[in-house]
Amino acid sequence: MTMINWGMIGGGEGSQIGPAHRLGARIDGLYNFCAAALDIDAERGKQFAVSLGVPADRAYANWHDMLEGEKNRPDRIQLVTVATPNSTHYEITKAFLENGFHVLCEKPMTMTIEEAQEIVRISEKTGAICAVNFGYSGYSLARHMRAMVVRGDLGDIRLVKTEFAHGFHADATDADNPRVRWRYDPKAAGVSAVMADCGIHALNLACFVTGQEVDKLSADFVSCIGSRELEDDAMVNFRMTGGAVGRLWSSAVAIGRMHGLTIQVFGEKGGLRWHQEQPNQLYWTPLNGRTEIIERGDESLSPEAISSSRVTIGHAEGMPLAFANIYTDLATLIRSRVEGVDIDTSHVALPMAIDGLNSIASVYAAVESASKEGAWIDAKP
Amino acid sequence: MTMINWGMIGGGEGSQIGPAHRLGARIDGLYNFCAAALDIDAERGKQFAVSLGVPADRAYANWHDMLEGEKNRPDRIQLVTVATPNSTHYEITKAFLENGFHVLCEKPMTMTIEEAQEIVRISEKTGAICAVNFGYSGYSLARHMRAMVVRGDLGDIRLVKTEFAHGFHADATDADNPRVRWRYDPKAAGVSAVMADCGIHALNLACFVTGQEVDKLSADFVSCIGSRELEDDAMVNFRMTGGAVGRLWSSAVAIGRMHGLTIQVFGEKGGLRWHQEQPNQLYWTPLNGRTEIIERGDESLSPEAISSSRVTIGHAEGMPLAFANIYTDLATLIRSRVEGVDIDTSHVALPMAIDGLNSIASVYAAVESASKEGAWIDAKP
Amino acid sequence: MTMINWGMIGGGEGSQIGPAHRLGARIDGLYNFCAAALDIDAERGKQFAVSLGVPADRAYANWHDMLEGEKNRPDRIQLVTVATPNSTHYEITKAFLENGFHVLCEKPMTMTIEEAQEIVRISEKTGAICAVNFGYSGYSLARHMRAMVVRGDLGDIRLVKTEFAHGFHADATDADNPRVRWRYDPKAAGVSAVMADCGIHALNLACFVTGQEVDKLSADFVSCIGSRELEDDAMVNFRMTGGAVGRLWSSAVAIGRMHGLTIQVFGEKGGLRWHQEQPNQLYWTPLNGRTEIIERGDESLSPEAISSSRVTIGHAEGMPLAFANIYTDLATLIRSRVEGVDIDTSHVALPMAIDGLNSIASVYAAVESASKEGAWIDAKP
Amino acid sequence: MTMINWGMIGGGEGSQIGPAHRLGARIDGLYNFCAAALDIDAERGKQFAVSLGVPADRAYANWHDMLEGEKNRPDRIQLVTVATPNSTHYEITKAFLENGFHVLCEKPMTMTIEEAQEIVRISEKTGAICAVNFGYSGYSLARHMRAMVVRGDLGDIRLVKTEFAHGFHADATDADNPRVRWRYDPKAAGVSAVMADCGIHALNLACFVTGQEVDKLSADFVSCIGSRELEDDAMVNFRMTGGAVGRLWSSAVAIGRMHGLTIQVFGEKGGLRWHQEQPNQLYWTPLNGRTEIIERGDESLSPEAISSSRVTIGHAEGMPLAFANIYTDLATLIRSRVEGVDIDTSHVALPMAIDGLNSIASVYAAVESASKEGAWIDAKP
Repeated sequence: MTMINWGMIGGGEGSQIGPAHRLGARIDGLYNFCAAALDIDAERGKQFAVSLGVPADRAYANWHDMLEGEKNRPDRIQLVTVATPNSTHYEITKAFLENGFHVLCEKPMTMTIEEAQEIVRISEKTGAICAVNFGYSGYSLARHMRAMVVRGDLGDIRLVKTEFAHGFHADATDADNPRVRWRYDPKAAGVSAVMADCGIHALNLACFVTGQEVDKLSADFVSCIGSRELEDDAMVNFRMTGGAVGRLWSSAVAIGRMHGLTIQVFGEKGGLRWHQEQPNQLYWTPLNGRTEIIERGDESLSPEAISSSRVTIGHAEGMPLAFANIYTDLATLIRSRVEGVDIDTSHVALPMAIDGLNSIASVYAAVESASKEGAWIDAKP
Repeated sequence: MTMINWGMIGGGEGSQIGPAHRLGARIDGLYNFCAAALDIDAERGKQFAVSLGVPADRAYANWHDMLEGEKNRPDRIQLVTVATPNSTHYEITKAFLENGFHVLCEKPMTMTIEEAQEIVRISEKTGAICAVNFGYSGYSLARHMRAMVVRGDLGDIRLVKTEFAHGFHADATDADNPRVRWRYDPKAAGVSAVMADCGIHALNLACFVTGQEVDKLSADFVSCIGSRELEDDAMVNFRMTGGAVGRLWSSAVAIGRMHGLTIQVFGEKGGLRWHQEQPNQLYWTPLNGRTEIIERGDESLSPEAISSSRVTIGHAEGMPLAFANIYTDLATLIRSRVEGVDIDTSHVALPMAIDGLNSIASVYAAVESASKEGAWIDAKP
Repeated sequence: MTMINWGMIGGGEGSQIGPAHRLGARIDGLYNFCAAALDIDAERGKQFAVSLGVPADRAYANWHDMLEGEKNRPDRIQLVTVATPNSTHYEITKAFLENGFHVLCEKPMTMTIEEAQEIVRISEKTGAICAVNFGYSGYSLARHMRAMVVRGDLGDIRLVKTEFAHGFHADATDADNPRVRWRYDPKAAGVSAVMADCGIHALNLACFVTGQEVDKLSADFVSCIGSRELEDDAMVNFRMTGGAVGRLWSSAVAIGRMHGLTIQVFGEKGGLRWHQEQPNQLYWTPLNGRTEIIERGDESLSPEAISSSRVTIGHAEGMPLAFANIYTDLATLIRSRVEGVDIDTSHVALPMAIDGLNSIASVYAAVESASKEGAWIDAKP
Repeated sequence: MTMINWGMIGGGEGSQIGPAHRLGARIDGLYNFCAAALDIDAERGKQFAVSLGVPADRAYANWHDMLEGEKNRPDRIQLVTVATPNSTHYEITKAFLENGFHVLCEKPMTMTIEEAQEIVRISEKTGAICAVNFGYSGYSLARHMRAMVVRGDLGDIRLVKTEFAHGFHADATDADNPRVRWRYDPKAAGVSAVMADCGIHALNLACFVTGQEVDKLSADFVSCIGSRELEDDAMVNFRMTGGAVGRLWSSAVAIGRMHGLTIQVFGEKGGLRWHQEQPNQLYWTPLNGRTEIIERGDESLSPEAISSSRVTIGHAEGMPLAFANIYTDLATLIRSRVEGVDIDTSHVALPMAIDGLNSIASVYAAVESASKEGAWIDAKP
């Protein structure tokens, strides 16, 4: 099986997300990392790329050079990951899609709804894949929840309760720390802080698991640390297109919570609870029955769970394998495009540009609602 | 130490809350259960009372008879517990307070704000104690959380996140079950279902622990089971008088959750997490520090925790002991009134009529907000 | 229903176990605490007894006086609880049994096997009940485990794994602390420390749940703190009369463990796990099935669990209610003796003198085995 | 950085451990998988190797061919992983070491103590590295425990309590299942079943964390399913070279336990608890202090923990990253041999041939002890 040529923009030395992508891409051995523009400091970026095994002539100074350098190569990259600062996602993703490259874009896909709509259009027009890295959807048991919903185990979904609440921005004395401060400054971060950064994952997961989109919402944003312009705590109530009610809490001041991505799904026929920090167990309670512990790796689980699980039951899997599932699904899609036949894509479950668009529309709706004392706002893009 | 003469109205055979009160009152041996009007069926109520050890002449047919019978006795009851259907709390509590009896009233204290204000006035005027049975405040670690807030361990409180979400009314086929149905019928239950029944406990606990009241709120109510007039799921955002932000979720359709009363308190200097179903552990994370597990019974805890704890560390205590703390605090207050001196009431931490009033005002505000698409409503009575 | 006259020997001011007994006896309101000899300091004991409501003429200076004082009264106590230092259990229990009093004796019932055999004989001869306070057997879910074994849910029991390991005697600098030191001094504590004090509970629970006795055993004792003569950590392997294999660990140096009584039972058809510190949940895994969480208070549980449970599902119950179950079962037995008819004793599950004897025989066998490098020793008395 | 040429013997299609090794080796991108003899069926093995990217001329029919083929190539593999059936580990490992290849051998390293001693000798003589895949030692928090012991946080270690107990061989009706049966047949499995297969990991982890070896031991083996010749449940008490006491339980009939590798370490100054199934949290209790939750990824942890951690705090890591740490440490060692200078190997923490030898000696000692009713047996090789 030929490896897929892959490149990366952003994610240089010191980045958190860069190594996570490279790890995810390496895990199943499907990608050849052969082009990169990793850093705003061109020289630093090139050196780092070479140290990671990228050929020197494909270690580019910036994404423009990379686009030019790659687009006419016979062995050009098939997939590019965009892990640059948020405000640049749009132009880079757009440019690569327009040149027929498949893209995996970090979230948020764009800074505005209009940009996101443009990305969706371009992806449709060119046929280039644009996936968005809502990486938690890659967990085996997240996929199993989705499969349970699809096959009707829960009946109609009544309620989704989701959280992404951590406490790492709770230190008021830290307000001048540049690593934290920019996140609460609209000039650097855009219209929203914790909702756009963390809450968006919880929101996407709610959509991913239920198969429904956010229809309208009402939000309450607060800045618990007074000097912040943007919110460090947010509560969003929403209604989904399939009738489910949603409740989402996101916080950066919840001292003692490490990460806090959780989802609970309640339907007519049962309820599910899952916690990203203990991702190998899923709690399932059938209506009028006892709570059961579903273990990742259990051979009786859905094909979606099995195909996204690598080690045997009782051996923990973690976030890097969730990322690996994103990359491996992308490889499957890319191959099905190239080879045209016989590639089974039925288990692929990838957040795509449309999900990027929907999530940004929800963030904007939340910002508007919060500015209007929680008025209900249409969240459809 | 002389026992306190105690009587009970409501809580007859088959009642859930009746045995819990009798258990709570017995645990420290401070009460002599000697008068009762336990049942709407006078004969049944009398027989049951006698079977519980109440003298036959003080096993009354109804509360009117009990009031008449007791008020002129030299050995009349000092405290009466009111555990009748909600709609009768007001008149009974009022009548007993007016005759100088101390009252422990089940929640909700009344059906309207005006009634609650009246109870507060009467209690003030007569000097009779009116406590409200927000029994979860009796847990040793609930009291320790409150003590930590008071002594400043958390600094200013930024955020309170609380839940009371169970799944025992999730069966749509159960809609005609009379034990469940009345709760969602405004004619029987009043203006609110799950918020007034369960959410009110979470709300009171938030006030109890933080020492703040609800100032204003915004609510989202839904009936996940369509045939219900009243809400079976509620989300309330609120602002507290001391500046804290509050978020409260209450549900009766969260299949798999048994009870679900939890509270998380986040301040400038640390965060707390406590779960009523595992009440002997409290999770405390100081800012920039590690999460510590605080065990009930630890001798280094606050006096408030120590004095409300009965068995040694590592031996579980449960809800009956929380109720016992309510009763024992009441005994302390009653004695301090009677004996006039030297009774240390400094550890008493009892929800009183004013808390009953505040909580009802919040429920009404939530109902109004929910009917106005989440408009922010003043919650002060 | 007439209350049972009850007295107590030992358990004076400052005692841990004394209040736990009084609490357990009060919870269901079945006992009238009317006679006591609480303290080695006669005056202190009398005063304390009176402060607890014991009539002054029945607040005795010592157990001899109490026996004399009670034995000819028409309203003499029916049950006496013996909570004195271990070395006195035998003579007191013996004397009261011989005079026809029912006894609840703290563990260990006696200091020697011969004494324990004598107690069993006297109890049989006189017909006086002698129960031993293996109080953890009173937990609702402990009884449910036993019921599950009896009704065959697990099939033949293969293996019992049990622990009672805490860390409160781990401080070597504490070696001179008199509250700790005596426990490791054979002159004060007898032949065994942590095994006789803690391990014995785990051992009894294994027998209680499986319905089997210890047949033979092999023990490894160590004193992790070198200055101790008796063991502060013990491991015992055993074989049970019904074919089960047993493994028991007990420790007093396991820093971080608060109490640590746990039991796991593995049979042909499923496995159970229960932890005393979270006593309201029981984990049950049927062979080839998923783990289910059994909640105390679930109405579908065994009659044995239901009848020993007081509050509704989701509301924690703790150790005092386990003790209450011991007392209430005793009341049922006593009444069935007195009233001769129609008292249903089928749910009574009380450790009796024979269990006290068996557990002491096991402790002696463990001591002998440990002194012989783990040689297998017959543990039957 | 040049990649290390790497080959694999065994671990063909359908194998559990094969993919885990390839995954571990890929994660940090340090290895070039370029030679293989994966299957007893030569053709199947070759095809599978090629499908995994191994060049056709280095996809060998068997290990003999591979040794011949590789040993004279200028680009010969530097490391070979041996993941064949246990009985072949010795001859293969021996042959490759003798030809100067570094080896990562699956456990157990050999079938006999003598063979293991021979491997140690050859490794020493040739200078070729022989590591043994006790993969759980690769977890970041396992390494942090070891670092805490080394730096004295616990003081002298008193007690190690470890378990590896699962329930996947508990079905008696499965006794003829060939995937299970061979494990309990001495002709196929050797002298021990669950102890050699699972318990050995717990034993190694106890040694890894404490830095001590097993000095002598006493074992109790049972076959809970009667038709088995070898043990399916084992308890081993041991004494370590540094004075610690050890207790190890291993089982294959513990229905409801998925894997069950846990370790608790108790020292003079504190206690640690860690569970492989929730590997991102470590519970630490300092003497006389509160239990703290140590999170993987916390930047304040030991260098050993930091360097073996890849994703940020709150994002789960699992077993594949533990394996990756084994491979990456091996790469560091190999490079330090090749490049001779400046490679920091101070954080390398790899179980080596000596650990393979020690663990086998312990298994043999346990078998002997079990056959002699638990007699204490010298466990030093």
